[in-house]
Amino acid sequence: MENQPAATFTHPLAAAELDLIDRYWRAANYLSVGQIYLLDNPLLREPLTVEHIKPRLLGHWGTTPGLNFIYAHLNRVIRNRDLNIIYICGPGHGGPGMVANTYLEGTYSEIYPDISTDTDGMRKLFRQFSFPGGIPSHAAPETPGSIHEGGELGYALVHAYGAVFDNPDLIAACVVGDGEAETGPLAASWHSNKFLNPARDGAVLPILHLNGYKIANPTILGRDTDEDLRHLFIGYGYEPFFVEGSDPHQMHQAMAATFEQVFDRIRAIQAEARTGAPGNFCPRWPMIVLRSPKGWTGPKEVDGKKVEGFWRAHQVPVSNCRENPSHRKILEDWMRSYNPEDLFDTDGRLKEELRALAPAGERRMGANPHANGGLLRRELVVPDIRDYAVAVSERGRTMAQSTEILGHYLRDILTLNADHANFRIFGPDETESNRLGSVFEVTNRVWMEEIKPYDVSLARDGRVMEVLSEHLCQGWLEGYLLTGRHGLFSCYEAFIHIVDSMFNQHAKWLKVSRELPWRKPVSSLNYLLTSHVWRQDHNGFSHQDPGFIDVVANKRADTVRIYLPPDANTLLWTGDHCLKTYDRINVIVAGKQPELQWLSMDEAVKHCEAGIGIWDWASNEQSAVEPDVVMACAGDVPTMETLAAVDLLRQNIPELSIRVVNVVDLMALQSKQQHPHGLADEVFDGLFTPDRPVIFAYHGYPYLIHRLTYRRTNHRNFHVRGFIEEGTTTTPFDMTVLNELDRYHLAIEAIERVPGLKEKAQDVIKLFRDKLEEHGRYIRQYGEDMREISNWKWPYNGGGDRLS
Amino acid sequence: MENQPAATFTHPLAAAELDLIDRYWRAANYLSVGQIYLLDNPLLREPLTVEHIKPRLLGHWGTTPGLNFIYAHLNRVIRNRDLNIIYICGPGHGGPGMVANTYLEGTYSEIYPDISTDTDGMRKLFRQFSFPGGIPSHAAPETPGSIHEGGELGYALVHAYGAVFDNPDLIAACVVGDGEAETGPLAASWHSNKFLNPARDGAVLPILHLNGYKIANPTILGRDTDEDLRHLFIGYGYEPFFVEGSDPHQMHQAMAATFEQVFDRIRAIQAEARTGAPGNFCPRWPMIVLRSPKGWTGPKEVDGKKVEGFWRAHQVPVSNCRENPSHRKILEDWMRSYNPEDLFDTDGRLKEELRALAPAGERRMGANPHANGGLLRRELVVPDIRDYAVAVSERGRTMAQSTEILGHYLRDILTLNADHANFRIFGPDETESNRLGSVFEVTNRVWMEEIKPYDVSLARDGRVMEVLSEHLCQGWLEGYLLTGRHGLFSCYEAFIHIVDSMFNQHAKWLKVSRELPWRKPVSSLNYLLTSHVWRQDHNGFSHQDPGFIDVVANKRADTVRIYLPPDANTLLWTGDHCLKTYDRINVIVAGKQPELQWLSMDEAVKHCEAGIGIWDWASNEQSAVEPDVVMACAGDVPTMETLAAVDLLRQNIPELSIRVVNVVDLMALQSKQQHPHGLADEVFDGLFTPDRPVIFAYHGYPYLIHRLTYRRTNHRNFHVRGFIEEGTTTTPFDMTVLNELDRYHLAIEAIERVPGLKEKAQDVIKLFRDKLEEHGRYIRQYGEDMREISNWKWPYNGGGDRLS
Repeated sequence: MENQPAATFTHPLAAAELDLIDRYWRAANYLSVGQIYLLDNPLLREPLTVEHIKPRLLGHWGTTPGLNFIYAHLNRVIRNRDLNIIYICGPGHGGPGMVANTYLEGTYSEIYPDISTDTDGMRKLFRQFSFPGGIPSHAAPETPGSIHEGGELGYALVHAYGAVFDNPDLIAACVVGDGEAETGPLAASWHSNKFLNPARDGAVLPILHLNGYKIANPTILGRDTDEDLRHLFIGYGYEPFFVEGSDPHQMHQAMAATFEQVFDRIRAIQAEARTGAPGNFCPRWPMIVLRSPKGWTGPKEVDGKKVEGFWRAHQVPVSNCRENPSHRKILEDWMRSYNPEDLFDTDGRLKEELRALAPAGERRMGANPHANGGLLRRELVVPDIRDYAVAVSERGRTMAQSTEILGHYLRDILTLNADHANFRIFGPDETESNRLGSVFEVTNRVWMEEIKPYDVSLARDGRVMEVLSEHLCQGWLEGYLLTGRHGLFSCYEAFIHIVDSMFNQHAKWLKVSRELPWRKPVSSLNYLLTSHVWRQDHNGFSHQDPGFIDVVANKRADTVRIYLPPDANTLLWTGDHCLKTYDRINVIVAGKQPELQWLSMDEAVKHCEAGIGIWDWASNEQSAVEPDVVMACAGDVPTMETLAAVDLLRQNIPELSIRVVNVVDLMALQSKQQHPHGLADEVFDGLFTPDRPVIFAYHGYPYLIHRLTYRRTNHRNFHVRGFIEEGTTTTPFDMTVLNELDRYHLAIEAIERVPGLKEKAQDVIKLFRDKLEEHGRYIRQYGEDMREISNWKWPYNGGGDRLS
Repeated sequence: MENQPAATFTHPLAAAELDLIDRYWRAANYLSVGQIYLLDNPLLREPLTVEHIKPRLLGHWGTTPGLNFIYAHLNRVIRNRDLNIIYICGPGHGGPGMVANTYLEGTYSEIYPDISTDTDGMRKLFRQFSFPGGIPSHAAPETPGSIHEGGELGYALVHAYGAVFDNPDLIAACVVGDGEAETGPLAASWHSNKFLNPARDGAVLPILHLNGYKIANPTILGRDTDEDLRHLFIGYGYEPFFVEGSDPHQMHQAMAATFEQVFDRIRAIQAEARTGAPGNFCPRWPMIVLRSPKGWTGPKEVDGKKVEGFWRAHQVPVSNCRENPSHRKILEDWMRSYNPEDLFDTDGRLKEELRALAPAGERRMGANPHANGGLLRRELVVPDIRDYAVAVSERGRTMAQSTEILGHYLRDILTLNADHANFRIFGPDETESNRLGSVFEVTNRVWMEEIKPYDVSLARDGRVMEVLSEHLCQGWLEGYLLTGRHGLFSCYEAFIHIVDSMFNQHAKWLKVSRELPWRKPVSSLNYLLTSHVWRQDHNGFSHQDPGFIDVVANKRADTVRIYLPPDANTLLWTGDHCLKTYDRINVIVAGKQPELQWLSMDEAVKHCEAGIGIWDWASNEQSAVEPDVVMACAGDVPTMETLAAVDLLRQNIPELSIRVVNVVDLMALQSKQQHPHGLADEVFDGLFTPDRPVIFAYHGYPYLIHRLTYRRTNHRNFHVRGFIEEGTTTTPFDMTVLNELDRYHLAIEAIERVPGLKEKAQDVIKLFRDKLEEHGRYIRQYGEDMREISNWKWPYNGGGDRLS
């Protein structure tokens, strides 16, 4: 490790350049304050009056001047070195700065022509900020050049890393606020450097922007000593550089000098790695600790209380400017301190010598196409799923591991798209465990730390990213997708809840992005949830939770899709379909254990395209009349138990007319008004009948099915069984018994719900109850399922039954 | 900073003691392997045969020998120094080790007498592990001495810190696996040392147990150099000690020597802090990096593949021991390598000289009462809520900030319980922002780093814990509650999703704990969710998400409660009620902004005790007949909009008979079979009528109300409005308009749903639609609500209307 001294405070800026960059910064600061405060009089051409000030002052000043400072200096190095940089603005509510800078560089007005580069445009720019119908106070989809929402904190650095994977030319300058730095996801994100290949990937320049305070508190890192911070970031594997102070001129020199150093360093690391010689794949990447006052250049004090350099500068440093003339005076003095006449011409346009400081065209950070990834997105090349189909000659008798089959397909996607380097698989150390291991025939896990001779499937250039942090997996993938690439996140079902909140924010990002015509579609975020609730045999209760589906179902219908393929061929269709979609979040829940296979590939395609359908071959209804009962199912384990229940019923009550309905696309259950995949009421009634009992075996919490179907004609006769929070370490079949989703409970309920049948079939009910008791005794004694359970197969192939 | 060298490898153990401690460790290892593999022949008194081996081998060996090693050495220091230590076992699936050790020390058999300390007990001990109806493979509620579930990773260290706050005598030895160390929550948890007061609190001894691998991968920290790790932990503020190797004797000496050093160090830090002299409140607490092989002492190789010291040792190092005789031989040799005859007497009891190595009574880590916090729990002293009541002389005309009122009550709880030091408030920097600021009249925020002269409400001994990490808040509180104390977590509603998964795991812990008679009840985990979806005026869409309620509602009825108090007095009742409950998770959603007040304290008590009720004073129905329409509401903003809608309807259609129903306790909507708070059907029908339209204005996603009420008689006539993912930066009223929950939409729907009324009241509908348009124009122009909206008050006080 090199022991790097604090940045040498040389003075790279000549007086003229120093003056220019300082004026540029002041222009950005001026525009930032204007956005927070002004309705009118944007250039302060007249004295500030009540009418010029917004009635509700909503915005955040604290972090903004620092963000503007960084932006101005990044512009300088982009211009000087022709760099390809995007700006990830981590600090919450840094919106005014991002908007101000993209306005100064011209991108804002190109995207939103109404916000023109003149006095009228500036008035509108100010007015729209944090104003009804306007724009949010943090970096958001509306912000040019952003792939990162500054609302919920913690994900700036993972987004930055995700953006530069497979983008060797790109640098993500990522500002991390010292508030955000306290979050768990951010604290783990620093270790992303162990997954960044300096030859193949771009670079991330983290800038820890310490202004010392959150809303009403100091921050942990803000009060740490430089000595501790130096240890911490060396410990994380970085080479820290410090830029600290409050005097603008001194700080400009320090920042410029430090940027020279760190961009030299990045260039050197990349150059060395790209020689092709075996070298250090885990170099000590530079990072910057920037200490500057919160609310820098704002009011020092208001009403005798410290504001600049304290948490009182967090939001609106001086409030009640309409009611309080002395506050209004503070505001006016503050804004005039930037000397707007020196910055903007009489038309309100940034002066020419300052305009020249911004990079040109796509080098402007607000116009960098990587931050509008749909512009760069190349369609994924996918093979034909039929090449991977499981042959199902006899349904319900062949065993296969669905995710293993999908793994073959994913392997070939990796091969077909290898030249484009635009597909990765993400997961918390579970790719092999989730049976996707055949991808390791053509790629490896990414790893930049030491690789030992006996390590398996570990390499510098792997395309599988595994880390024991769902946050990192999700965040990397988001960054990767938002910059125009493709990916899949495979995860244990229960633990995907760890990223509920990140899912929410990504869904919100997609919803807003879709409303912006200039944001081009990006690939969907695809989850493969396996090791699901019903097959946590050895992990038990803590690993049993199917509730992520419920979180997803709350989001807007145009954004989310939920698929529950019951076997391998349906999983193939689903995976293939999801990888071709864009601007969505697709959730696929599928088992990884050996399971019975039901549908041929042709049937699977037809079934999945409809999303839902009657399984004629499993039903024994007569076409002329409605069945006595509908046995419905969604999810692989519920499907098997339903079919076993149908078998029990058909054996014991042959005269009972049964229809089997299987659901792959959960959204088909909703009404057409609620979801584009929703079935029309008449189609729904055609499947589920208007009045017959429906015994519905569902993968997750049963309430969701009620919630999706409550408006349907026959809803009152829906009897849903699912996970009811009964779980432990036990056999898969016993799990279904504990939650009363097993074949016997399903069959008993069918008998009990068909009018008049219960009385006639008391003996059958007793038989099934006895079986449940026998099961209980057997399992407690032997720890295994009875043979008749574990060996059960669908018995009706080739007999007199209809086969499709 | 002191530059601590690696632990000096002195040799504190004399030969006899070394032999004893090694035998003790071997006994724990033997019992661990036995649990994973054996059904019978527990002491290997006969050759191992197929029948002795479990049919399904489910368990995790990899981390276990290291955990056992630490346990044995902790026993030694507890005995030598009479220490009060609990063991937090972070590594997933370390269950066999925790069970083995608590069995060896005798606590297991005291709690579960059937698992006796003899051959028969050992057979049962082995059999129950990862066996249907048995115990899980990780530390869990069933494990004596545990307050930490080892299933979902990331929370060991926060639990440890939570446990020792206000427990000056307690030390939490916390083992962090190197897999877990990759998670975000864990990475942030290291900074908890900045919130631990060495004078007032106990100590945490983190032991980072690096065995280098996860399921199928190396780990980041496992492959880090010692040099980087030293920097990292110094950077986090610790003094790292290294214990590394694989030779048992050398490692025993090293561990014993290091423990001597670190416990000396802890004692010295505490002694210095407790002199009362102003000193260093942020000392460099010791932590240990223990590098030992994964699967230490297990098979070195199986089938020619590396196992010990590699990820293949993670789970079952040698499988198929029934089918494969050579594997069975490996297993038998492995188990015999511990020399069981040297460890257990002929009755299967641990030999006497080894039994003497465990501490006695409550000093045994499996019997430490802090790990069964209900034993130590002291009732919280609470004041009379009536002392804080808002006087509501005219309902719907007084304004108050509900959470501010609750703040007064909380302030006095802090005072009343100050001597017991058993109540803390947790939150991500939002106590003041959430208007609970009056607690700072009697306490402060906890802070151990530098305190500057101008800092506000910051102190070494504060009882408010603020950090910008919901994970840390939640984890600290869980640790605090599970060790027998009380607390409240106040959080922005949207961002509580960050801890969805932690909530899930805590709910699971409580569910299982309640089924164990020896686990005594602990205080409920209470959430106050404010800054909610409807009042994110300046934060916008990213801060708008009411979906946590849905996650909570999936959990078992005996564990969760959800309250939506509509005003200050109802919030007082709710807060008071929740703080008195135990073994539950209570969610309270309440606004922090000035709002109209509806109920006197007497009325609030009555209303909240019922959980739901008709608001006679707002209704205009005639008692003899059913109303034309029921206007129902849950949540503060929906309640106000509903009452404003009622006002609009009463003004414009005086003959319309309206009933107003308000819901505080959401669980009252469910049926009695589903939830203990559920209303009987006849009571429900009495409130909501069997057949009249119900216009339900609900705080969150509308589907939840359907899901809770789908079995009710009148469900088909429920028309629920709530948050439908339409949000932005705008006024609070405009938010309701965007989501069609505002007074006008509610009133129009009421008119449209009452049979025959729509035709007669076309002019009224038009009036309301015009108002909505006028609102839209006004807000876009002025950025404020029209006066008639923002100044609206309930107009019916003192007139001819009934007042209760």
